[in-house]
Order: sequence, then structure tokens, then C-alpha cells
Amino acid sequence: MMFVGNINRNILYIGNAALLSFGLLFSSILFAEEPIQPIKEPTPENLEMVELGKMLFFDPRLSKSGWISCNSCHNLSMGGTDNIRTSIGHKWQQGPINAPTVLNSSMNLAQFWDGRAKDLKAQAGGPIANPGEMAFTHKLAIDVLNSIPQYRNLFKKIFGSNQASIDMVTDAIAAFEETLVTPNSRFDKWLKGDKKIMSQTELAGYKLFKESGCVSCHYGSAVGGASFQKLGVVASYKTESKAEGRKGVTGRETDRFVFKVPTLRNIELTYPYFHDGAVATLEEAVDKMGRLQLGIDFSTEENSKIVAFLKTLTGEQPSFKLPILPPSSNKTPRPVPFN
Amino acid sequence: MMFVGNINRNILYIGNAALLSFGLLFSSILFAEEPIQPIKEPTPENLEMVELGKMLFFDPRLSKSGWISCNSCHNLSMGGTDNIRTSIGHKWQQGPINAPTVLNSSMNLAQFWDGRAKDLKAQAGGPIANPGEMAFTHKLAIDVLNSIPQYRNLFKKIFGSNQASIDMVTDAIAAFEETLVTPNSRFDKWLKGDKKIMSQTELAGYKLFKESGCVSCHYGSAVGGASFQKLGVVASYKTESKAEGRKGVTGRETDRFVFKVPTLRNIELTYPYFHDGAVATLEEAVDKMGRLQLGIDFSTEENSKIVAFLKTLTGEQPSFKLPILPPSSNKTPRPVPFN
Repeated sequence: MMFVGNINRNILYIGNAALLSFGLLFSSILFAEEPIQPIKEPTPENLEMVELGKMLFFDPRLSKSGWISCNSCHNLSMGGTDNIRTSIGHKWQQGPINAPTVLNSSMNLAQFWDGRAKDLKAQAGGPIANPGEMAFTHKLAIDVLNSIPQYRNLFKKIFGSNQASIDMVTDAIAAFEETLVTPNSRFDKWLKGDKKIMSQTELAGYKLFKESGCVSCHYGSAVGGASFQKLGVVASYKTESKAEGRKGVTGRETDRFVFKVPTLRNIELTYPYFHDGAVATLEEAVDKMGRLQLGIDFSTEENSKIVAFLKTLTGEQPSFKLPILPPSSNKTPRPVPFN
Repeated sequence: MMFVGNINRNILYIGNAALLSFGLLFSSILFAEEPIQPIKEPTPENLEMVELGKMLFFDPRLSKSGWISCNSCHNLSMGGTDNIRTSIGHKWQQGPINAPTVLNSSMNLAQFWDGRAKDLKAQAGGPIANPGEMAFTHKLAIDVLNSIPQYRNLFKKIFGSNQASIDMVTDAIAAFEETLVTPNSRFDKWLKGDKKIMSQTELAGYKLFKESGCVSCHYGSAVGGASFQKLGVVASYKTESKAEGRKGVTGRETDRFVFKVPTLRNIELTYPYFHDGAVATLEEAVDKMGRLQLGIDFSTEENSKIVAFLKTLTGEQPSFKLPILPPSSNKTPRPVPFN
């Protein structure tokens, strides 16, 4: 194993070695030959905060309508996504972009497709106040929570204050989301030494995935999420979507169509694909990625091998009881779904 | 205990005795002095069917948009309701009526506010094909399910056919819904002999509830759901809702504003109240019911006693793991949320 000092999180990795970033150092020692590392089980520090975050994640009272929760678009029954092209927001507004999975999102270098939020906490407040999504305000959401005695008691217990704040809310949601990792996929078991668990086709797909260069962007524990890359390197991507990618954050024209590389973990569950959700199947996604990013025209056989490999990345889905939410009190502001 | 032959399910019961209907005979023997019986724990016969029904209950692919599931409006995190006045349907259509709780709905004499479905199975198919709700068709919903290998395997295992039908789907959803009962409320514990569990205020509320005549409609295990009654007996109910009640089913003008008596189980969780959802608080609901149905103007103190009693009807909420849904296949028809 080679040691590289001062390595940057965004460094591109091309080839077969293993050390990608300082944060991956330990897993790199264990799996020095592979550019993808197994997912570790989450080890939450504050279980009470995780439980509160779970309730908030499922609570539609954080939206103006009282009908949209985090789970509406990041549905934990469906790979942490909504499985539709672009999401539905308040009053059925059509969202501008495909909802990224919340699963393993703690491993991303930043949040949202354009990385405009630095972490899960910064992300969590976004949709609540976005007029096209939950269409609420942070103040109104906090007013709702503070009107519910059971929530106040939980905030008091966990944060030492019986007045909730948006800071506490996003802390708790982020703490819950950090537990939403999917370990023990078949590929991870193979990485850890169970060499019989992958079929010959799947292994051939993984070999192709590495040798063709897919791995130059899709690497690390999340098989993606570790860098921003331009969509359409070799050929340009045609889309009706107006999303500009990193340009919207940096203002630089060169950042147009530069997006966070999506994770390929649980990719079988997180269709449709690409930031515009225009790609319905894994076969089409692999084909397009080959042509647009690598200049490779995968044969049907190669394509199906890579798809077979990708399906080994489906891990154990989060397993927890549906949270029961505390009732509103007479003082709770009522939702306003229709005006 | 008095025995009454040929007793009719809809018979009105006024007073303190116990025998209300033939179906309540056994519980009447056990709790001969009380017009309300404890909820029994569910004893599902076919656990695999219940599990399948749970998946279907949470699966938004039974809707045209791919975004609305049974749980969207009968949210099991929120008392089996959506806690908004009238429900939101496909493309954010405003529904005509308040979503009744699915909790303990197996105890109802019929389903929907107007009782137009004779049982849970007959109800379950309604919203899927209702253009104002899930806006799908039974055929399209079945096409979706039959395109998903894991669902086909489950239908094969449970029903002996690897082709799902709407009959199987509604059987499974109903089997799941039959498990959604909420036993062991504080009131039920009191009924079963734990005489210290109710406060003096709550007991005074129960006494008032019986003596004022509330119990003439809200009786039985579900504290309601056992008869159709006219809303506005003493004074007429003013509403903007166009719902006609039983008239829509029977065509009889005398059935206008005759609705199924809603269950009072978990009433603390199932706000807002009445078929039009126009009543926000329990206090207001008790006040209106007193005036409209009984000609009684409850004092503030009486009102608060009855409300205290009603809050003892909150039982153990359904406790189960969030179901993980099988992914669509390449052959699965994609949802059409926006056109």
C-alpha cells in the first residue's frame, strides 16, 4: 500500500490502487486491493436523538400542508427515494430534480446534487422551507413542535431546552439519517472474504466496472458521493432539466452540469436514474454512462455483467418500527393544505 | 342481564344496561354492566397474508402518481388518519370528506362515512380507482404488481396463483387492516378490573358520557361504528360539505345527513372531527354533539370531564417494522404523476 500525504477529498482516482482519501485510510488498509470499501454498521452516539430524528423524519407537520414529510420523497420503504422522475412538492408542484436517496448519504462529501449543503444537518432544513417542497418556514415548523407537549419533553431531555429550535431539529434529523446505512450487501460480504457469494457474471461485471473506468468516479464506501464530476465528458447529455449543477453554487460557467457523483449503493432500488430521473433502467444508465463519460459502447453482454454487479450493491435496508407521532394539542397551528 | 330475542344491529340503546346486539353477546356477559367492551387483541389466521397486506398498504405504486399509498391518508404514525380536514388526492385534489381512521375499522358495521362498502375488503379497492384519490384503475394496479417478481412470488405462496388479482389485493389489505386494533387503553384496563387506573375526573366524564346519552350511539368495543345516525337530531348541523351521508347509498331523502357513527377509540389522535373535519378540538366536538344530538349544553366543567374520559380511549398503537417494498422490474409500468 502506498501512502500519500496531504491527499484531498476530491482527488480523482484512476486505476487499481486503494488509498483515496484520508478518511478511508483504515478501510484501505483492510481492503488495499479494492477501490470500494464495505459499509460499516452505524454506531450512533445518542440513541434518544436518533429516535427523535426518526419521528421528525416521518412527521408531515413539518410541512405547510401537514401532508409531506421527509419520508414522502426519501421513502425508506423504497430505497430512500420516491422512485419518480422528479419529486412532488406542496400543491403537487413538479420538482426540478430527482430525489437522491437518503441511504448512506452521510458518506457524501456534500448534500444535494449540486452539493450546496455541506452536510446532512445543513440539508435537513432545506426542504422544510423550500416553497416547492414542504413550503413551510422554519419558524412555523418550530411553532408546531413547541405546541406539542410530548415533543417539548423530548427536546428538553435531549437538548436541555424545552423550546425546540431549527438547529435542534436538523441535528436530530441528521442523527437519524446517519443511521440509514445499508451494510452487508453481497458485494460487501465478498470484499470481506466470502469469495463464493458472487457469481462469475457478477465478478466479471465488477472487473469491467473497474477496468472501464466507472470506478474513477464511483469509488469508496458509497461507490460514489466522494467527488463532483461533469455529466457529459465525452459526449454532451441531452435533457429538458434546467438544473445547472455546481454552477448554481459557484457561479462558474465551467461548473455547469457538474454534479455530485451519486452513490451506487442500492442502485437497484433507487430508479429512475440521473439528476433528471430520465433514465428508467439500470441497463440504460450503464449504456449512457459508458458513452457519455467514458466513450465506451458496452456490448449487451458487457452491459448485463455490469448490471449484475451493480445489483450486488443492495445492502440491508434500515429496519425499525414505524414511529408513532405525538398528537397535536389544541394550541398547535393547523395545517393549511389548500390555500 | 336481560336477554332480548331477535335484536337488531341498529337498535338504539339508551341507559345503563348492556345487551346491544347479538354480536356483542359474549362480551356483554363479561362486562354486563358497561355499554363499552374492551378491545380484543387481534388473532390473525394468515400471517403471511397480513405481511403482504402491510406491504400493499404502504405501496404508492397502487396509485397513478406512484406517490399516494393507503398510508398517505390513513397514516399509522398518526392514529390511522391524515389529521387534515379533508384528504388530499391525486394532483392535490381536495377530497369531499374527512378520512376516517383505519384503526379498529374492522369493528364497523360497514365502511366509509356513508357505509357504502360492506366490509374492509370492499372498501380497500375504492380509493385505488377513485379519480379523486389514488386515481388508478384496478387493472393498472394489478399490472404493476404482476410485473414485480417478489410480489408474484408472494401471491403464488399465499393465494396459489402467480397472477395477482384485485380480489387477492383487497383480501390482503383487509387482512392487514384487521390487525390494526388498539387494545389496552386505560379505559379498557379499567373495564377489565384495574379500578385505580382512571382518575376521578375521567370516571366522572364516563358517568356523564353514559347519563347524557352519548353512549346511545357510541357503544360497543369501538365506542361507535355500530350504527348509522342522523347528524343534527335536535338542531341542524351547518356545513359547507356536500356529503349527503346514507342518502347517497339508499336514495332516500330521510337518509340525508345520516352517517356511520364514528369510533371514539383513539379520538385524541384522530382530529379534526366530524365528517367534514370542521371541528378542530375535542372540546368543540363534545360541545357540538351535546347541542346537536342531545339538546344538552354541557358546562365547561362537564365538557372537560367528558374530554378527559375520551382521552382514556387511546390504546396501544400498531407496532411493526416499516415494510421494505420490492423494487419494480424493467417491465413495471412507470408512475405518471404529472400528466
